[in-house]
Amino acid sequence: MRGRNSFPPAMSSNQLDTKSQAWSALFSEPMSELVQRYTASVFFDRRLAAADIAGSLAHAEMLAAQGIISQEDHAAIQRGMSAISSEIESNTFDWKLALEDVHLNIEARLTQLVGDAGKRLHTGRSRNDQVATDIRLWLRGEIDAIRALLRELQLALIEVAERNVEVILPGFTHLQVAQPVSFAHHLLAYTEMFGRDEERLGDVRQRVNQLPLGAAALAGTTYPLDRERVARSLGMDGVCQNSLDAVSDRDFAIEFAAAASLVMVHISRLSEELILWMSQNYGFIRIADRFTTGSSIMPQKKNPDVPELARGKTGRVVGHLMGLITLMKGQPLAYNKDNQEDKEPLFDTVDTLRDTLRIFTEMIGGQLNAATGAKEGGISVNAAAMEAAAQKGYATATDLADYLVKKGLPFRDAHETVAHAVKAAQAHGCDLSELPLATLQGFHPAIEKDVFDVLSLRGSLNARNTLGGTAPAQVRRQIARHRARLVGEPRP
Amino acid sequence: MRGRNSFPPAMSSNQLDTKSQAWSALFSEPMSELVQRYTASVFFDRRLAAADIAGSLAHAEMLAAQGIISQEDHAAIQRGMSAISSEIESNTFDWKLALEDVHLNIEARLTQLVGDAGKRLHTGRSRNDQVATDIRLWLRGEIDAIRALLRELQLALIEVAERNVEVILPGFTHLQVAQPVSFAHHLLAYTEMFGRDEERLGDVRQRVNQLPLGAAALAGTTYPLDRERVARSLGMDGVCQNSLDAVSDRDFAIEFAAAASLVMVHISRLSEELILWMSQNYGFIRIADRFTTGSSIMPQKKNPDVPELARGKTGRVVGHLMGLITLMKGQPLAYNKDNQEDKEPLFDTVDTLRDTLRIFTEMIGGQLNAATGAKEGGISVNAAAMEAAAQKGYATATDLADYLVKKGLPFRDAHETVAHAVKAAQAHGCDLSELPLATLQGFHPAIEKDVFDVLSLRGSLNARNTLGGTAPAQVRRQIARHRARLVGEPRP
Amino acid sequence: MRGRNSFPPAMSSNQLDTKSQAWSALFSEPMSELVQRYTASVFFDRRLAAADIAGSLAHAEMLAAQGIISQEDHAAIQRGMSAISSEIESNTFDWKLALEDVHLNIEARLTQLVGDAGKRLHTGRSRNDQVATDIRLWLRGEIDAIRALLRELQLALIEVAERNVEVILPGFTHLQVAQPVSFAHHLLAYTEMFGRDEERLGDVRQRVNQLPLGAAALAGTTYPLDRERVARSLGMDGVCQNSLDAVSDRDFAIEFAAAASLVMVHISRLSEELILWMSQNYGFIRIADRFTTGSSIMPQKKNPDVPELARGKTGRVVGHLMGLITLMKGQPLAYNKDNQEDKEPLFDTVDTLRDTLRIFTEMIGGQLNAATGAKEGGISVNAAAMEAAAQKGYATATDLADYLVKKGLPFRDAHETVAHAVKAAQAHGCDLSELPLATLQGFHPAIEKDVFDVLSLRGSLNARNTLGGTAPAQVRRQIARHRARLVGEPRP
Amino acid sequence: MRGRNSFPPAMSSNQLDTKSQAWSALFSEPMSELVQRYTASVFFDRRLAAADIAGSLAHAEMLAAQGIISQEDHAAIQRGMSAISSEIESNTFDWKLALEDVHLNIEARLTQLVGDAGKRLHTGRSRNDQVATDIRLWLRGEIDAIRALLRELQLALIEVAERNVEVILPGFTHLQVAQPVSFAHHLLAYTEMFGRDEERLGDVRQRVNQLPLGAAALAGTTYPLDRERVARSLGMDGVCQNSLDAVSDRDFAIEFAAAASLVMVHISRLSEELILWMSQNYGFIRIADRFTTGSSIMPQKKNPDVPELARGKTGRVVGHLMGLITLMKGQPLAYNKDNQEDKEPLFDTVDTLRDTLRIFTEMIGGQLNAATGAKEGGISVNAAAMEAAAQKGYATATDLADYLVKKGLPFRDAHETVAHAVKAAQAHGCDLSELPLATLQGFHPAIEKDVFDVLSLRGSLNARNTLGGTAPAQVRRQIARHRARLVGEPRP
Repeated sequence: MRGRNSFPPAMSSNQLDTKSQAWSALFSEPMSELVQRYTASVFFDRRLAAADIAGSLAHAEMLAAQGIISQEDHAAIQRGMSAISSEIESNTFDWKLALEDVHLNIEARLTQLVGDAGKRLHTGRSRNDQVATDIRLWLRGEIDAIRALLRELQLALIEVAERNVEVILPGFTHLQVAQPVSFAHHLLAYTEMFGRDEERLGDVRQRVNQLPLGAAALAGTTYPLDRERVARSLGMDGVCQNSLDAVSDRDFAIEFAAAASLVMVHISRLSEELILWMSQNYGFIRIADRFTTGSSIMPQKKNPDVPELARGKTGRVVGHLMGLITLMKGQPLAYNKDNQEDKEPLFDTVDTLRDTLRIFTEMIGGQLNAATGAKEGGISVNAAAMEAAAQKGYATATDLADYLVKKGLPFRDAHETVAHAVKAAQAHGCDLSELPLATLQGFHPAIEKDVFDVLSLRGSLNARNTLGGTAPAQVRRQIARHRARLVGEPRP
Repeated sequence: MRGRNSFPPAMSSNQLDTKSQAWSALFSEPMSELVQRYTASVFFDRRLAAADIAGSLAHAEMLAAQGIISQEDHAAIQRGMSAISSEIESNTFDWKLALEDVHLNIEARLTQLVGDAGKRLHTGRSRNDQVATDIRLWLRGEIDAIRALLRELQLALIEVAERNVEVILPGFTHLQVAQPVSFAHHLLAYTEMFGRDEERLGDVRQRVNQLPLGAAALAGTTYPLDRERVARSLGMDGVCQNSLDAVSDRDFAIEFAAAASLVMVHISRLSEELILWMSQNYGFIRIADRFTTGSSIMPQKKNPDVPELARGKTGRVVGHLMGLITLMKGQPLAYNKDNQEDKEPLFDTVDTLRDTLRIFTEMIGGQLNAATGAKEGGISVNAAAMEAAAQKGYATATDLADYLVKKGLPFRDAHETVAHAVKAAQAHGCDLSELPLATLQGFHPAIEKDVFDVLSLRGSLNARNTLGGTAPAQVRRQIARHRARLVGEPRP
Repeated sequence: MRGRNSFPPAMSSNQLDTKSQAWSALFSEPMSELVQRYTASVFFDRRLAAADIAGSLAHAEMLAAQGIISQEDHAAIQRGMSAISSEIESNTFDWKLALEDVHLNIEARLTQLVGDAGKRLHTGRSRNDQVATDIRLWLRGEIDAIRALLRELQLALIEVAERNVEVILPGFTHLQVAQPVSFAHHLLAYTEMFGRDEERLGDVRQRVNQLPLGAAALAGTTYPLDRERVARSLGMDGVCQNSLDAVSDRDFAIEFAAAASLVMVHISRLSEELILWMSQNYGFIRIADRFTTGSSIMPQKKNPDVPELARGKTGRVVGHLMGLITLMKGQPLAYNKDNQEDKEPLFDTVDTLRDTLRIFTEMIGGQLNAATGAKEGGISVNAAAMEAAAQKGYATATDLADYLVKKGLPFRDAHETVAHAVKAAQAHGCDLSELPLATLQGFHPAIEKDVFDVLSLRGSLNARNTLGGTAPAQVRRQIARHRARLVGEPRP
Repeated sequence: MRGRNSFPPAMSSNQLDTKSQAWSALFSEPMSELVQRYTASVFFDRRLAAADIAGSLAHAEMLAAQGIISQEDHAAIQRGMSAISSEIESNTFDWKLALEDVHLNIEARLTQLVGDAGKRLHTGRSRNDQVATDIRLWLRGEIDAIRALLRELQLALIEVAERNVEVILPGFTHLQVAQPVSFAHHLLAYTEMFGRDEERLGDVRQRVNQLPLGAAALAGTTYPLDRERVARSLGMDGVCQNSLDAVSDRDFAIEFAAAASLVMVHISRLSEELILWMSQNYGFIRIADRFTTGSSIMPQKKNPDVPELARGKTGRVVGHLMGLITLMKGQPLAYNKDNQEDKEPLFDTVDTLRDTLRIFTEMIGGQLNAATGAKEGGISVNAAAMEAAAQKGYATATDLADYLVKKGLPFRDAHETVAHAVKAAQAHGCDLSELPLATLQGFHPAIEKDVFDVLSLRGSLNARNTLGGTAPAQVRRQIARHRARLVGEPRP
């Protein structure tokens, strides 16, 4: 949802007509301003302001502790930064294009407010290490927020799963009916995916949370900085050990974008299924109206807009990953201006993930009704439609094969035998369980009356009772495991 | 420069601290509004307003001509749209999030202004075909503007080439000195690239400039529309022949993004060279100060920010291409909401190309000084540094081989002979042309005094006098050809 | 199907165990050979052999015509190349790794066969322009083959369409039932897509079919070549006009890969639908058994392997496009060894398209039974299942709205009225056409008995009778247009 | 180097001429075989054979331990697998296309060798979980091998660094001379990058090393498997907890490809610098001849083929990442045939990394001469050229600014003062250190004679003596840290 803040330049940038018109529009803006805008980042990097101030305060504290600046200067910087924070929060800060980026804007204002102390803040640092520090601080916070959202989404899936352990759905491979599965089991597959995402982002966080500050422009600094003190103040896990690498490394951005792409791939898979399940030929679920829209022309439509849009937004995030890799390919050391292009893709990736995860959590799990203490408005499950669909497609054929194996046939022979039985049932237009015992025995004499237990959907489900299987007992065990992992204790 | 309009949501979206803080920030916005924002596009699709109005006017004109709406309704729609255009231009139009997109905003305002006539405008169309029409109309205009900018850039390259036909530069392969080339010849390689871009975008334009309107939601309409009349009104080349395809096709967006990626690949190659040529060890060129920036820490720096940033922006455009392909992969017919995600990448691609091409044109060719009628501030060429560099690396070794071939040696043998001569010159720490005649004759008796003509840089240059070669005569011929192509007549 | 020729290096490259084992395996191959293999291309570029020979023959013919080599040399080269062609065709040619690539292998053999004449062949050219020429010649041929296959696929779609003009399918938007469409109309949407692909590849062909030969290494040559003569001999459309650009340009490869990606995006969309239609809950079609596979464990399965795999192969081709763009980003002029990496992605892209298109043509249209003259084994259509699905979801609601508009209501009001009617029908669990007239009239008094004509699926279909619409009359017109375009004359 | 095993299909697949020829070539291969080839994977998945056998043996052992198969069957399976391993190693195994993949080929052969016991091996598993297990086992081994290679490369960099701690190089930002740095410090920046790669692949390994076996086709199995026993036998870190996720998850492949892309991005950056440093205008280094090639036309050329090709191969690996993401986008659960397309990109990625890392290690560090015990043939450093380049560009300007700060000026004012001094030096065509003291004092009276200490390259270097800085003392500390990390103990 980058769009929420994208206002179009002006109508005149629409070029519907002739070249001459297009041309004059091009020159509505004097060149020098265009260069300034082209190279400036203040339009989008303001969201780093809080990180910039936090980083500056930690730097100033260390400069004072090391005796590089005076305590008076330190106090003045603190005072000035506090005023600046207030101005930004109250939207009274006067951002200036001519000051290019968030960093210079804040520093210039600081000097305006506190004089020479402000000028001394930049001692022993450069914009190169300052920018790298700010983006890491900001991204660390966003990773924490996204991991929290991933946990919420997992919880929403678990809550719906909990209510649907006994609901039977056709498990598909190749989108063909394969074997009956518990709907809860199906949802828990996504809990696994989002759980991996959370873990992966935890790994990324460690490599993000390293301090570049003190690398100065590229070679380190001549001032006796205490970089580890700054790292501790900022809650960072370590200090970048090589100044050239510190200012030019954007691995963490690419690694984050790759992890974010996987989150979106999972969202795209879940969306694909929600859309499929909503289509009339499936009719397995409904999602609440506020996640759908109608049609301007077809009065009967209720379209699953949110999952479709989320599926589409996968492209956006994957595109950012590709863009960031392209950006870094072949760059010589150390800092190059190319790197300024790391920000917008990161910002948009973070916004997309945060909005998408939050909406999915509510779309699936519903929202809390404060009055009743219950969640309302999550997905509605049509268990009958699911079970009816599972009846098609000979979903228990494998169970018959397993039955024969237990009677002593090698699996491959049992498989062959059942294939003949299925063919016969197809010819009769009926399910395997509807064939007479005698007919079944015609395929193999070992078949006895108890075969009908294994040919039922529920019998099939219950039989898959090993770790990771779809039997309700296993599914309940998994729900308990997830819940313990996510909320720290089993549900009462 | 999407950034120019991207204002950060609010400082509170910065999550530097704890999960709990992050969490509360997540809920500062009530869910329903988030859904609305997530699915709405009015924040970014306003730039389609002119296209939307043009498309609606052509539709209304046809409806009236076909007798589907009355002449009065048509007049009312024209009047209303004229008022809306004024409101948008004067920034008094009241865009509403609740109305989701540019199309509904305009239609709602129209109905407010002209009543039932406004409601009748939507007869025989749907948002699906309307959106597809608008984006094509808008993109057609942008393609025309970009092609004009590509021509301007080619002209700038030609002008600089014209002044540097006789300037000798080391031609590199593998970044190793290979053979001397004319600096003009080198610049003209980029004229070829941008010329191909212009041609390719011309091909794309034909597939963009087709009319989807009349496909309605997906199946066509029950009203007796005259789609070809609408196509003619809008200056389109044809009518989409299948309604399902018309509303779901986004080939044109992908094809445009692919062509745009090639433009940026060319920009990245030129940027790489400009940056290299600016580095102290080359020192071949300087670019004007306003395309460079200094350093916050190193007082001596003058950095080629613009080419670096442009090289970085290649990633952005390539990312959009990847995003659009990912978006369309595996989508069933017909329209899906995923497609709404086509707009932002297209808008940003267009903005990036327009800004980059315009800046490069001026950075290379300079800007017109109205007083003198001359261009000023383009790249400055250090011919001496270029020629000195060409002296290194035995750039005329191939010429010696060719000399021997003309004396009757098979090329492969001549090549071998010269390799020995180069080895000897390296041992002496001198150029081939500095070896005594006797020494050269030691490598092959056919070598005579005239060998020194072919061993000079200028001799080498002049000798490559076939079509496409670097001889000044050929280069001048190419300049004339390009100029004729670009301005329609040879320069006086 | 690159795989068809990929044999694994050796079992020892599997590293299941410990580092030490892995390590020793790494050194099973002496370094020097590894370097040779790393930089050589003869393992994969042999498929350029025919192009290489054709290019060399045209070059030799011109050298002789220009008097640069003798007629005897020319005759010797022709004789030698003829022998080499035979050796390659009969698999007796002895490819040598030490000779690095296809070009040196052939030239070395030529010299072996015909002596000095072979050495003279390389006069006035370099491997840089030779490689560029070969790859363009080869790709031109492949584009022609792919365009022919695209035409065959379009014909197959048309043949199936022709038999299914009157078959009604639910047209979906958002995978929700929208309006009834003709199954033929649906298939023709893909004819449009593949038709655009064919056209787009035609545009690409023009930029591929340009001659780099004569650019030599990078600067042109000192020999009086007649490049236009060579271009004519090779059937090329023109000559690359700048030698630096000629040897370093790979635009044509990227442009081809982008066009190929679009072909695969279309294949992925068609595959998605085939898979959906094959799933038990749709049951709209069946594809012939030889395009499906079974399961090793589930005896009842028949999986649509071919469309699934084809959908997956989209990733492969898109990956090649991204790889090629990454390859070229930021490369300085002129030729760099990076460019050798252009070949494998191109080869694999071509193989993937050729195999996929050929298989899809037969999977959809069937194969010719020579005995009967009829095609057999194409997709089987279950018209009853399609029509039953179209009955769900109030597919004719738009028709009711249009009916009301024709009675004088503004469209927006009609839309609103119908929404209420749909709600009522949903409450009754019936279709709109099953509501009593009195009930319908309760929603609007203008409704009369003739409303039931517009509420039938076939009535709805027939009513969409404008250009591009789904009415059978329109669909037949489109089939005739496509057939004329593809086979040059209307069917008898 | 996939290419090493790619032999072209046949010359007839070259289509240089007409459509009709192209067409007949298309049909040289009968359709049914094409379908078989299209869907088969045995041409490329054979390299999974060792993993497949290892997985089967662990499965059989558990089946026996659980009493699901007899000890006799288990012994027969072990015996058969042992024979099959020998056949594969000795290249006598008869791979059959008709058996589709490596798994069926091995199972079929097993049954041939040991009869019904072979058929019983498939009890409680499916190809879906078997394939997922095999690919994970194989990839785990490759990750270990690649991590070992990354450590070797880091060691090679450290060894070269160790010899070049005092060598001064111009540190660049924006490819403009910025500040002097130690060449060792520069190399250590890459040690950081490859160190992160090693760490990141360690994280990936944990998510790869999970056992899917026991998920069967998708729903778990009816046999009382002990999945944790199998995981222990195979040295895996855990068991996939959800059967649907187990068979359909390919996160690990994408995550590996993303980590591999970062390795290649680092290789591309290092390559860019090696190429730059090799170019005549830099002349900083030479690489051994066997990593370079000559030119077929220019006898003097020595081209850095290996770094160029490696830079190009970045595209290949990035392309595979994008291909894999595209593959998984929007796939519904559970297994779909699309997933078969995961293998070739993984195989090629692994091959590319292994070859590239090994070659770079030797190209940089040289190879061990067993006779002398020394490494030979690594990069040669031209310290004089590096230092001369550092003299250009006022690399010590920042030091002068810092000098003034220490005299009490705020940094921003010092920066401004130095800018004026640089301007004056430029006007005089000399370095800052060459300006007379009086002139310097003209810029600020606080400047004293000791200023010349800070204006020397070595003075500048030594002054950057904080953690991560370029002072030799810091660099030596880093070398010791890396060495301890990589070889477990400090060097004697």
